[in-house]
Amino acid sequence: MERHAENNCPTAHKAPVAPYYAVIFSSTLSDNAEGYGAMADRMVALAKEQEGFIDVESAARTSGGFGITVSYWRDLESIRKWKNVSEHAAAQRMGRDAFYKNYRLRVARVERDYAFERDE
Amino acid sequence: MERHAENNCPTAHKAPVAPYYAVIFSSTLSDNAEGYGAMADRMVALAKEQEGFIDVESAARTSGGFGITVSYWRDLESIRKWKNVSEHAAAQRMGRDAFYKNYRLRVARVERDYAFERDE
Repeated sequence: MERHAENNCPTAHKAPVAPYYAVIFSSTLSDNAEGYGAMADRMVALAKEQEGFIDVESAARTSGGFGITVSYWRDLESIRKWKNVSEHAAAQRMGRDAFYKNYRLRVARVERDYAFERDE
Repeated sequence: MERHAENNCPTAHKAPVAPYYAVIFSSTLSDNAEGYGAMADRMVALAKEQEGFIDVESAARTSGGFGITVSYWRDLESIRKWKNVSEHAAAQRMGRDAFYKNYRLRVARVERDYAFERDE
């Protein structure tokens, strides 16, 4: 059964009514990524403390080092503030200086949101 | 070096000028997912043939079966048509009937797009 997120969905605590915003971060690690895991974990914990944070989803890195993290935010202002949190800004520099071979960052406005949950 | 995708970026062949659209599909497999991998591979191949398709990124599933696939499209009309391609519609039904424990599908308008590529 497909449900609209705004219609009494069981995961509604994570489902604000659209529109809200997504930051889609897809990246490939460099060969010089020692310490990356601890930094990534810390950034997730720090993001969760920010005003306007909604949720974050990460999918595991393959052996090739490719991964996707999508974070969700109330509005563009929350994303702008999170980008400029000093510890996060330092992590971004470390990412560019050492951890990442490449990345792609997209800011997107979520317009529709559906959740499916199996009825057991 | 951070580059705007529209500024002569080396990955520009995959970087249309925003706005374009993203379909963020995050899902957890059920215990009944035999045949899922072949179906997923076929859907990626089929998506690439569609009018308005731009790109697709998938991150590997963890042992818990969670994964994220993001596909990128020229406009909402391309996404609507892709949703209704009959072989894709059949795959969606199989997903709900068997493969997925849960999923979340978000349609989002990409407003900003940055690419970083390490200078070696």
